[in-house]
Formats: sequence, structure tokens, C-alpha cells
Amino acid sequence: MAEKITPRNQDYSRWYTEVIQQAQLADYAPVRGCMVVRPYGFALWENVKDALDRRFKATGHENAYFPLFIPMSFIQKEAQHVEGFSPQLAVVTHGGGKELDEPLVVRPTSETVIGHMYSQWIQSYRDLPVLINQWGNVVRWELRTRLFLRTMEFLWQEGHTAHATAEEAEEETRRMLGVYADFAVNEAAIPVIPGRKSESEKFAGADHSYSIEAMMGDMRALQAGTSHNLGQNFAKSFEIKYLDRNNELQYCWTTSWGLSWRIVGAIIMVHGDDQGLVLPPRLAPVQVVAVPIWKTDEEKQTVLAATETVKAALGDGVRLKVDDRDEYSPGWKFNEWELRGVPLRIEIGPRDVAQGQVMFARRNRPGRAGKSSVPLAGLAGAVIDALRLIQNEMLQSATEFRDANTRETNDYESFKEAVAQGFARAWWCGRIECEDKVKEETKATTRCIPFDQPGGSGRCVVCGESASEVAIFARAY
Amino acid sequence: MAEKITPRNQDYSRWYTEVIQQAQLADYAPVRGCMVVRPYGFALWENVKDALDRRFKATGHENAYFPLFIPMSFIQKEAQHVEGFSPQLAVVTHGGGKELDEPLVVRPTSETVIGHMYSQWIQSYRDLPVLINQWGNVVRWELRTRLFLRTMEFLWQEGHTAHATAEEAEEETRRMLGVYADFAVNEAAIPVIPGRKSESEKFAGADHSYSIEAMMGDMRALQAGTSHNLGQNFAKSFEIKYLDRNNELQYCWTTSWGLSWRIVGAIIMVHGDDQGLVLPPRLAPVQVVAVPIWKTDEEKQTVLAATETVKAALGDGVRLKVDDRDEYSPGWKFNEWELRGVPLRIEIGPRDVAQGQVMFARRNRPGRAGKSSVPLAGLAGAVIDALRLIQNEMLQSATEFRDANTRETNDYESFKEAVAQGFARAWWCGRIECEDKVKEETKATTRCIPFDQPGGSGRCVVCGESASEVAIFARAY
Repeated sequence: MAEKITPRNQDYSRWYTEVIQQAQLADYAPVRGCMVVRPYGFALWENVKDALDRRFKATGHENAYFPLFIPMSFIQKEAQHVEGFSPQLAVVTHGGGKELDEPLVVRPTSETVIGHMYSQWIQSYRDLPVLINQWGNVVRWELRTRLFLRTMEFLWQEGHTAHATAEEAEEETRRMLGVYADFAVNEAAIPVIPGRKSESEKFAGADHSYSIEAMMGDMRALQAGTSHNLGQNFAKSFEIKYLDRNNELQYCWTTSWGLSWRIVGAIIMVHGDDQGLVLPPRLAPVQVVAVPIWKTDEEKQTVLAATETVKAALGDGVRLKVDDRDEYSPGWKFNEWELRGVPLRIEIGPRDVAQGQVMFARRNRPGRAGKSSVPLAGLAGAVIDALRLIQNEMLQSATEFRDANTRETNDYESFKEAVAQGFARAWWCGRIECEDKVKEETKATTRCIPFDQPGGSGRCVVCGESASEVAIFARAY
Repeated sequence: MAEKITPRNQDYSRWYTEVIQQAQLADYAPVRGCMVVRPYGFALWENVKDALDRRFKATGHENAYFPLFIPMSFIQKEAQHVEGFSPQLAVVTHGGGKELDEPLVVRPTSETVIGHMYSQWIQSYRDLPVLINQWGNVVRWELRTRLFLRTMEFLWQEGHTAHATAEEAEEETRRMLGVYADFAVNEAAIPVIPGRKSESEKFAGADHSYSIEAMMGDMRALQAGTSHNLGQNFAKSFEIKYLDRNNELQYCWTTSWGLSWRIVGAIIMVHGDDQGLVLPPRLAPVQVVAVPIWKTDEEKQTVLAATETVKAALGDGVRLKVDDRDEYSPGWKFNEWELRGVPLRIEIGPRDVAQGQVMFARRNRPGRAGKSSVPLAGLAGAVIDALRLIQNEMLQSATEFRDANTRETNDYESFKEAVAQGFARAWWCGRIECEDKVKEETKATTRCIPFDQPGGSGRCVVCGESASEVAIFARAY
């Protein structure tokens, strides 16, 4: 809580960085492009992790751990994969004081080494499906980096599954995109558009890639999670085969899907305001901050006693922080916890206590709008209700904002206006030439071809040729 | 469950590797010295992690994340540290297709980069103590590796704290060793000896190192966790300073402490037998396996119905696996789950069901000794009791084994016999010359100078000079 934060409409990118640093979510590391996640930011990431991990386990997945280092030769086995990832590799050439015979790549993603292991573990149809997830770090050599959104090293999860049939692999790919969408909407309060990536935007080595796309506070898009149907591409490169029921050798069908700490950047940008972070209650490290307010010693005694009552009433069901520090004023504390995005503040002043009540202040409704006095009797229920209300209101606001800034358009001029400040939903012929033209002229790209389609056909907003699908176009992070 | 496992007394090291691979805990990675942890092994590690993380949080620590890569110049700042770790470094020299100006070290441990960040975060005594833990991977270039025990990359946690005074740092160092000891004894059922490392065995850059030492099934020692008082060594190298209450600039006092997936190796070696793993109930991924037994279709109906009853009775309170696979015989399943170390097996046969009971088989008491019939009524309580009993018995057996193979000795000949097959507890003068002699002649090292000391003084078992402390000597992993 040092300096005042730059307002969003003055410099959005600066606002973003200042919020992260002042709220102590993260900091720059001494290595270019790398980040340190501080305890408050890491607690948020741990909550993200838990919410996803529960969903992975509920859909039958298990966690495992594969090595950080991958032999260079592995990366080269799948043609598209090597083409996509080669420019981004960090390479270990020396170990234990000696030059290595074969350089080791620091994993940018683990399809190759996992494919190699699957080829050893899978023999028969009885071994399928294999449903494994890994939580870990990966490294991609990025030139332009930004805290949480694009860092050289990042934490993520990568799911890798192997199946007996193309249908099962496709089903899995879609199921996990659904898990991401459910997480984004119901935990992070971020409305997302699930859909298929265009050919030019898909993962290096995939048959089909799917993503969930969200709108940030500056109306740009962010890809918040991806799920890939890898077909038999990696199975063929790594000899992942099984004996089917007829005792015939078949290649497996594999998938991969990933979500990274990028989602923390999305949470900041979707919900944050000029006062700082606004965290969704379900993921907030601190859901409720209780601030006792006093001037005299006598008042102090009264309000601290009431604070104890509040603490006891809430018990373990709520992540509560009591801020009874002497050295800071109530106003200073309000600012601090607003900056840090705590969803609900409970103010405990002597006059309130005398009336058997406390004051709620909801972070997502700044000023008087989010304030209400609440009786001490039945407080726990009122807190749960308030947190639920905040969570719902945050999703609703984000959805309204996105919808208000999304335009359906069929003429190229208004399309250009639309992508200059939001999402455009438009018919697209599917040709890369039209994507390239849009990118060159507007910096926008196809974000996805949403599952939710109008049906029928139309004219491509770029070239006017016949189009069978609608795409979402936007400038993206 | 492929081949028979080599008996321990025939080849302990081979037994160890076979158990790990056949129980599907882990597998060799395609990179020399690296390991893949399979889902069953990872679930065990996750339980270790949860049990420790709870303890870290209960003692006021928070998790954070620091970068994988460390500038080479950082490693060189603390003189002893660079000397200790230089031979073990993996070095990234190329990134994004270019040679780097300064090579990056893949962290072997994070004192240096964390010290650098602490120097920025800590200004005043009000910022102290800083109590941070990190879960992550580190890399040390090891020549001789062994699954879980010594791998080039390993998962671990590393705690890093900064304090205002020497006393607080020492207190923290000891507190965290106590946390490790509590975890080892009460979760892993491994009795440990907490104590101070000798000068020659301490961490590179520490003033004092402490460890917990355990005896494996082959009577060799394994260091299962370490805690270091770093004094002001890193504070001085990285300028970690604070303004004290008198507004004077002081160096901080720092600590670090770590425990790795090595502990999984200890669990295997302390408890395993010739049938395979024996896992302590508190950490076992599967605590109870229920095996319905039938011959006829009618019996199948009966026992599967009873199995459902068992499942419902146990609810979510127990990690239960029902093995009702058709394609394997009960005997095959018994072997499989014994190999995989499941603490309690519930056999559900038609005759038992007719009598309103099931059969318990406790993994830690093979054969008839661990079998008992248990009424279906009140089953949940009986399972909880059995798991608690198994946990206690495992700790007791391991303690008895260790004590039976630990000798107090004051003459060098019997000392040599003692360390050839167990631990020796003996007076030691504290000089490295005596340590070196013992190492050369017996391959044993000082494991620790235990906190539990007889008091008074004696004669060094090696040189006969006056000695004020007793040390534990053993051959170690």
C-alpha cells in the first residue's frame, strides 16, 4: 500500500502491473521474463489448483510426475511439434561440469516424454484409457513477457490421455474443455466462450484444438485454457500402440489439455477496478476481513470483544482475516484490503456494537452501494449469503460487460470498429488469407469458432465468400 | 504383478528397485538419472505433501514460488555454497535459439535467489520474520542415482525464513526439524533420531545443520530431512538487511530446511517385506481394499451386495478400493494388493456373508497372524481401529528393529562390527580426522550428534581423546 495506482483508462497495462506488485501477488525475478509469486498470489493459485484438481479427480484422472528434461531428439520426433516449439526452447548443454553428449531441453510441454512412457506402459486395450494429469513448471523462451500472462517459466497443469478410439479421444478433449469452462464460470466468475481454434491457431501437433476465451477489462481477449485432440500424431511418433480385442496392434488416440497461472492474470483483469483487485469469493485467499474500529481504550475493549464473537461465529467455514493492528488507521486498512481484493469487509465500530450489529462492505460494489448493517445474531449465515451474492454479481457484471462489448457484424467497416474495442462475432469462410488480412489491418485474430453457432450459412465478413461458421475475432493477450 | 520379487536378503538393492517398478510407484525416465513418478507413487507423495503442508501452515508458514533459473553469478556469491554445489549444476547456455550472455543454473536449491528477493522485500523489523516455503523441483547432477533416493531432478519442499535475531533463527531451525520428526514418526511410522550434523556433513553455507536420521531395512542410515541455521552468511552475501527499533541497519539471520521425495524411499525400505510394499495407513493412497470372493453366479450376487454394504458403511472417511474385477482370481488380487502395500484387506466371501461377517487381513502381519473375522455390524469403527492398530504396530516394529540394531560401544573393534550391520552410538572427539578414519576403514559416517545426549564426557571411540558428545555412526544412503 505504497503509492496510488494508475487508473485503468489512463494506462491499462501499467494499472495491471501496479496492482500485482502493490497487492503483493507477484514480483519480477532477477532472471529476465521470470516471476516470483508471493504468498498472497500463491494462495490464490493454490485455490485455483484445488478447484481444478477436484474436477480432474472427479472425472477419473490421476496425477503423476514426468521429468523436467527432455532429450532434444524427442522434441524432433513429431514434425509440427518441433516446428512450433523450436524457437522457444531453453537448452541445457552442461551438467556436472561437463558438456553433454545430447543437449537436454527444459520441457516446454510434455507430450513427447509422456508419449515415450505411454508406449512402455500401454500394451493392451485393458490398459486404456490412461488418464493422467501433471502439475508442474514449464519453460518457453518468450521475448515479450508480462506478469502471469506470459512468463518464461510458468506453473500449469497438463493433462495427457490415451484412448482406444478416435471418438473417445474427441469426447475427452471436449469433456476437459467443459471442465475448464465450468471452473472459469463457477469459481473464477469469468464468463467464457468455448470453441474450436482455427487451423492457424491450433496447438503444434494437434488435429483439433479447443479453447475457452474471455474478455478482459480493456476489452481484449485472453485464452484461458486449451484442450487438444492429438489424433494419432504423437502415438505414431512415439509408438503408443495397444492390442485390441481381436489381438490386433493399433495406435492409440491421445489428447492433452492445459491451464496455467495465466488464469490469475485473467482474474485480475476481468474483475479489478481502479482501487485494485476484486477477487471472487470462491478463490480469494482471504474471503472476509474484519476491521475493529476504536478511538478510546474503552471502545477498543468493546470492539475487540465483538471481533472475537465474529471470529467464533464464522469458525472454520470462512477464510477470515482479523486486522486489529494498532499502528494503522481504519481508513488505511480499508484501502489496503480493497487493493488486495478481499470480497467482504466487516467493520466493527463501537456504535454498531452497541446496537448489536456490524457493517458489511462488499468489495464489488464500492462506496455506499455495497454497504449494509447486519445484526450480530445470525452473522455466519449472513456472511455466507453475502459471499454467494458477491460471487454471483461478479459473474453477472463480467457477463454484461462482455456482452455489451461484443458485436455481431457482417460488414467489414463496422467489424473493424468492433475489434478495435471488443469482440466481433462474424461469419468467416475459414481461409487463412482472411485471418491474415484481419490481423494485418486490425491486429485482431480469430479467437475461436464457438460451439454456439447460429446454423445455416452466411457471407465471410472479410471476403464475402460463402461461410458456414461464425467466429469470434478480437485483439488478444 | 509380473514376476516374483527378489528376496531382500538375497539382493536388497534389487528388491528395492523391483518393488518400486512392480508396485508401479515409479519408473526410469529416458533421461539418465531422472525418474517418472506413476499415479500410485504420486498419490503417496501427495499424501506426504498434505501432511507436511498442514504442519507448515500451522506453524505460520506460507507457500510461494521462486524461479527455476538462477543467474550463475548468484551461486557464486556465497563462498561455501558455490564450492558445495558447483560440481552438481545443470547449466542452460542457450535460449530461444541464441547463446545466453550469462548462463543460467537450474536451481539445485534456492537460498541465493530467495536471498536476493528477501533483500528487496525486507526493510524494517516490522517485516520480520518472513516465513516462506516452496514446493517444487530442483536439479543436482548426480553420478550414481537410485529411484527416489538420489535422482538428478527431484521434488521437494524448501523452507526459507528470515529473522531479526540469532536466537529466533536457531529456534526456527529446531522447530522445523521437530516438524519433520513429528511427521516421520506420526505419519510415516518411521522412528528418527534428530540431531546436529558434524562440520564436514553440514550444508554448504550453513552455520549449523540438523537432520533426522532413520534406519532402513538393510540397517543402513538415511537422512530423511534437514534444517539449516544459515547465520548471517546469506544475509551478508545478498544484503538482506532491516532497520531495527533503534533505526539501525542490521543483517537478518536466515534458515532453510528441506524434505524431498527421498522420504518415499525411506517408507519403502523401513516397512517393506519380501511380498512388497507395506504402507502406513495415514499415508497410503489406498487404505483398504475390499475383495469380493465368489465361484457361482449366485455367490457373486450375494458377495457383491455385501460389498456394496461395506462401501456404504465406510463412506468417505476411508480411502477404499473395491476390486471386483472378473478377470482375476482372488489369490491373484491378494498378491497384487500385498505387493502394493495396502494396509488392510477385507475379504468378502459367501460363507462369511452368510454369518454376517467379513475377513480382515492386516498387511503388516502376513499370514494367519493378521487375519480376523469381523462382524458387518459396526464395520466402520472396526476398520478405523484396525488402521490405527496397523499404524502403531508399524512404528513399533520399526523402532524395535532399529533399537535391536543399534549398539553403544566404546572400543573401536566392536564399533567396526556395529557399523557393519547397524548404527553405532559412540563418544566422538569432534575432529574430522577421526571421521575420515572411520569412513575409510568402515564406509560409515557420522550421521548426527543426537540431541539426546548422556551428559558428562567420555573417550573418543576412534582416537581415545576426550570427547564431550556422543554421535551416531552408520553407513548411509
